[in-house]
Amino acid sequence: MFVRAACDEISEALAELMSAFVNRAEQARDAAMPAYTHTQPAEPVLVAHWLLAYVEMLLRDTERLADCRRRANFCPLGSAAVAGSTLPLDRHSMAVELGFAAPTPNSIDATADRDFIIEFVSALSLLMLHLSRWTEEMLLFSSREYGFIRLPEAYSTGSSAMPQKMNGDLLELIRGKAGRVIGDLTALLVITKGIPLAYDKDLQECQEPLFHAVDVVLSLTPLATAWMKAAEFDLPRMREAAQTGCLNAFAAATYLTNKGVPFRIAHELVGKAVCLALQKQCELQELSLQELRNLNAHFDSDFFDFVKLENVLAIHNVPGGTAPARVQEAIASARKRIAQSREEAHAHA
Amino acid sequence: MFVRAACDEISEALAELMSAFVNRAEQARDAAMPAYTHTQPAEPVLVAHWLLAYVEMLLRDTERLADCRRRANFCPLGSAAVAGSTLPLDRHSMAVELGFAAPTPNSIDATADRDFIIEFVSALSLLMLHLSRWTEEMLLFSSREYGFIRLPEAYSTGSSAMPQKMNGDLLELIRGKAGRVIGDLTALLVITKGIPLAYDKDLQECQEPLFHAVDVVLSLTPLATAWMKAAEFDLPRMREAAQTGCLNAFAAATYLTNKGVPFRIAHELVGKAVCLALQKQCELQELSLQELRNLNAHFDSDFFDFVKLENVLAIHNVPGGTAPARVQEAIASARKRIAQSREEAHAHA
Amino acid sequence: MFVRAACDEISEALAELMSAFVNRAEQARDAAMPAYTHTQPAEPVLVAHWLLAYVEMLLRDTERLADCRRRANFCPLGSAAVAGSTLPLDRHSMAVELGFAAPTPNSIDATADRDFIIEFVSALSLLMLHLSRWTEEMLLFSSREYGFIRLPEAYSTGSSAMPQKMNGDLLELIRGKAGRVIGDLTALLVITKGIPLAYDKDLQECQEPLFHAVDVVLSLTPLATAWMKAAEFDLPRMREAAQTGCLNAFAAATYLTNKGVPFRIAHELVGKAVCLALQKQCELQELSLQELRNLNAHFDSDFFDFVKLENVLAIHNVPGGTAPARVQEAIASARKRIAQSREEAHAHA
Amino acid sequence: MFVRAACDEISEALAELMSAFVNRAEQARDAAMPAYTHTQPAEPVLVAHWLLAYVEMLLRDTERLADCRRRANFCPLGSAAVAGSTLPLDRHSMAVELGFAAPTPNSIDATADRDFIIEFVSALSLLMLHLSRWTEEMLLFSSREYGFIRLPEAYSTGSSAMPQKMNGDLLELIRGKAGRVIGDLTALLVITKGIPLAYDKDLQECQEPLFHAVDVVLSLTPLATAWMKAAEFDLPRMREAAQTGCLNAFAAATYLTNKGVPFRIAHELVGKAVCLALQKQCELQELSLQELRNLNAHFDSDFFDFVKLENVLAIHNVPGGTAPARVQEAIASARKRIAQSREEAHAHA
Repeated sequence: MFVRAACDEISEALAELMSAFVNRAEQARDAAMPAYTHTQPAEPVLVAHWLLAYVEMLLRDTERLADCRRRANFCPLGSAAVAGSTLPLDRHSMAVELGFAAPTPNSIDATADRDFIIEFVSALSLLMLHLSRWTEEMLLFSSREYGFIRLPEAYSTGSSAMPQKMNGDLLELIRGKAGRVIGDLTALLVITKGIPLAYDKDLQECQEPLFHAVDVVLSLTPLATAWMKAAEFDLPRMREAAQTGCLNAFAAATYLTNKGVPFRIAHELVGKAVCLALQKQCELQELSLQELRNLNAHFDSDFFDFVKLENVLAIHNVPGGTAPARVQEAIASARKRIAQSREEAHAHA
Repeated sequence: MFVRAACDEISEALAELMSAFVNRAEQARDAAMPAYTHTQPAEPVLVAHWLLAYVEMLLRDTERLADCRRRANFCPLGSAAVAGSTLPLDRHSMAVELGFAAPTPNSIDATADRDFIIEFVSALSLLMLHLSRWTEEMLLFSSREYGFIRLPEAYSTGSSAMPQKMNGDLLELIRGKAGRVIGDLTALLVITKGIPLAYDKDLQECQEPLFHAVDVVLSLTPLATAWMKAAEFDLPRMREAAQTGCLNAFAAATYLTNKGVPFRIAHELVGKAVCLALQKQCELQELSLQELRNLNAHFDSDFFDFVKLENVLAIHNVPGGTAPARVQEAIASARKRIAQSREEAHAHA
Repeated sequence: MFVRAACDEISEALAELMSAFVNRAEQARDAAMPAYTHTQPAEPVLVAHWLLAYVEMLLRDTERLADCRRRANFCPLGSAAVAGSTLPLDRHSMAVELGFAAPTPNSIDATADRDFIIEFVSALSLLMLHLSRWTEEMLLFSSREYGFIRLPEAYSTGSSAMPQKMNGDLLELIRGKAGRVIGDLTALLVITKGIPLAYDKDLQECQEPLFHAVDVVLSLTPLATAWMKAAEFDLPRMREAAQTGCLNAFAAATYLTNKGVPFRIAHELVGKAVCLALQKQCELQELSLQELRNLNAHFDSDFFDFVKLENVLAIHNVPGGTAPARVQEAIASARKRIAQSREEAHAHA
Repeated sequence: MFVRAACDEISEALAELMSAFVNRAEQARDAAMPAYTHTQPAEPVLVAHWLLAYVEMLLRDTERLADCRRRANFCPLGSAAVAGSTLPLDRHSMAVELGFAAPTPNSIDATADRDFIIEFVSALSLLMLHLSRWTEEMLLFSSREYGFIRLPEAYSTGSSAMPQKMNGDLLELIRGKAGRVIGDLTALLVITKGIPLAYDKDLQECQEPLFHAVDVVLSLTPLATAWMKAAEFDLPRMREAAQTGCLNAFAAATYLTNKGVPFRIAHELVGKAVCLALQKQCELQELSLQELRNLNAHFDSDFFDFVKLENVLAIHNVPGGTAPARVQEAIASARKRIAQSREEAHAHA
């Protein structure tokens, strides 16, 4: 029953967090930023597109919790010590009255089983992994060097030693707590591995890691939501970063492939153009048409429009891509799915 | 696609293993054995009831794999490096043609996500936990001291030093491999924790633990099935153990409560009767009516029938209890659910 | 300083536990029992020999704690926030006054490092592994089926449902807590992995797992000591088990090799003798000389003395072997090393 | 013997890596950079001081390996299956001839024990943690946003999709592999937990994680060494970063405390000065004396020299601090300790 209630409570907290992400995505409109791979800027994307990546992760977390809830929702009452009750109980009525789907089907399994705890804390570990990846990005993006996000003062602390500092304590705490929940999961797996049926006292040690993991998630998720609401995005700086460092190189290669150049060769040619731009400390679109034509005759005057930020975004025009119209659809779809998950959580309450 | 195929293959292997358990349960008919809690004999149960406990665990594993498969069944093709493809791909058709439910909804998430691997290996860890608890019981029950089960020679080895020995190597190997799969899961969680979006090379290190975990499960599950088919149960010895050591004490307390004695007092009175039986090195039903009446006047001549093995089993007459009729129902239900899971696995093939 | 003090306190608790093992070893004199491999009886050994195996493990634990203490015994005071103090502190005097060996050599490392915690909890994990293997054996040996050890009532509980039961709760709790400490270690490793220098708030999350692991060890070690003092060994039953099931088969093979038969062939011949004994439901020494000679002419009348329990024990006459004289030496050596470890722990106090 | 040889080989590889760090430290002379806490710039330090922090970690790793080697260096030969050999072996001579310190003291422990593997892989996990923290810093510092370090081309790869990219694959691989080694350690702990003495087949599963962890460390350590030799530091950019963002604020507070202002008040006053500088988008030393005096009368014309980079570094003048003379001493001390560790490794060869 604890797991069932915790699933519902956490699902509601996740719905709030997802809404915060979607709201920020909507507010960000057509603002652009670099998407990173290998901690290196890769291509420009919409800020909204990036934020929605987290919503997808959290939607999967919500689903996993629902599956876990469904599987845990069987009533062990009437299993007695190990062989089943010797009283003529109506286990079906009891189960239904307590809001369970049905009674557990085997009394030995019912007293020995801690699957519902382990599956639940596995799901919470994945959720904390998602939050830890988010905190890592928030810490990077709020560093002096990136400067994309201003740490919200209410969730940060000054340094006791260094008067100029502001530290993202909440973020680091979440990242650290993710390690704790993984430790909880490990403990649960280790405790249960290789002990005989049915009940052994070892299983009592499953309770603290469960409670700890739930406490962590229930206390930190609303703080993450509040953080997301309070953080200030420096959208101009993000846009500038999206336009610096030849992030349109992939688009430039697409330009050439559209003209019939095989991708491998297009990649190589644009590589040379990037080198030239680096030498001249400029961007691809600041090279002259002549310089480009020296590399390959397919470069033409329409190249300069093609590699402009707005067009670079627009050509990623597939479902799940960063083209603004696709992202609009994605926001609408996310809102709908969040509303559904919220309804399901309410249905249980 | 690898995860999807592995889910199907493992589900089929689990169906075989579950069938082996149910077949043995059916063969065991009304044979009885002690159920243990805290590695101490607790109450008599049907051998079939005990075997079905494992079927319940494995059915949950099968369900978890199905959930995992459903959640993993989205096609990342067309996400390109991070921002979505710049070619006008029809991602929906591609996904459908490759047997996926739909394309992944966000290109950044699609390139950064390893949830499907982690959830899958979590499910495999639980499965291996179940097998490790089974091996622990098989090792106990095949020990000289228990003597319930004869190690099948084909899956055991003699000792290179000690000519009298036969070792349950396969069982110990499975128990050890459970530790390895938990190590795989830990590696996956640690690798993914706290790395920024989207793709980082660290994620390449998710492949080996995934492949290893699948190899372990796919190679050991059929061996566990074969072991279960080949192992010989010493049913008379199990029955004898079920009738030794006052395992009907709980039933005896039920006898008194049926006569109106509060359970707490019944428990205490039977405790005294057990002490007396221990002193006299006999079983409860071997005490005289007079000796019992000295303890409490509610003891009567019907007591001796009530605590006979067959009645002790019969009075655990609730759904999920060990009463023979209930166990018959449980066998039928298990067969039905195994057939369903097999059908679902086939539907995907 | 917490780790340093905890090392000392735990070392003292371990010295007590080791003394309890050695005392029981001494009390057991020449009592014999089966040694097990693969949960199958292998050869007879002295009970004392078996108990001393745990002393070796615990001595290594004590050494590891001493190494850990030495490595942790550097004073970070004066490292300030990250770059070192700006006050003209005499760090050497401060370190010496606080009982440290020296100040830490690098201010960045001093503020970022949590090695001393991780190494310490690694050492505690190994210690708990040893205790968990001990509890596993205690649970087996106190089961009804083995019957070697009587659970001490003070550290066991009756069953709330089953009046005939006595459960080894403390043992199962220790085994479960071993899983918790492994979870603590995992958390520490995960928290620290991949965070940049120097201090990050994540590191605050290292404290609870440290405190938890120390609490577990400090509360359970004295209970394990008390358990060992209170448990009653059924030495006659252990001796009987050591003489049952042809555990002298390896000795019998040695007999033949002493007569010049190659070990491989000796092993095979004794294997056949064992089969014969099993058929006749007797022990090797209960076969007739004629029956043995039918297998091989090297069997002679001195065989029957050779495979008697006392001789079987005596011929394992190497340092570290179970021959009574060797075990006497081992007891003396263990006492000496325990006294040394106790002195070292006191020297720090 | 494998563990012993691996300890020696890894110690040599670590000596090479430490030398690479010390050489870079020496080459960096008085170059300065920001030290970070909470991923935020904290105070200026010498680049050499920062590099030496890693040497301290690696020296501890080397020591741990030496302790582990010493503890593992006992010869199990002659323990036979479980009770000791029945041949009159001279175990001491055998041990000495094979280069061991002594024979193992108890045959049951010798066949059951895997401490030496677990302690060894614990030590390797800590080593990989250190490398993973190093890779995290290298990835940050080689990001476009930090720009402190140029990824060495030989150990990086271009992007298959994005022509402008250079990825620090080796670094990410090391960070990922750290997760794998933690997974190996978890597997070892889980496998060994709660299995009875002496040998069980489960223990065979300890080999692969051991070999895997050694392979990882032995293959990656030399690559990390090569990376450190090849990476180019942008010392001017690091110096500029050390002089930007009021990193001398702590020094400024020290200035006031030297004049008798209590630290708490000094911290507050400098905090106000920092705010003023932020408003004016300048550094503390660019404020006018009048502006500073408006905050507090203790500010005087010597303030401007006091907070210059060179003086800020110089006043961290304690052992382990970043004052250049202290760092010179630290380099000399590190060289000496590395030479010692190298000698010890050679002594074993």
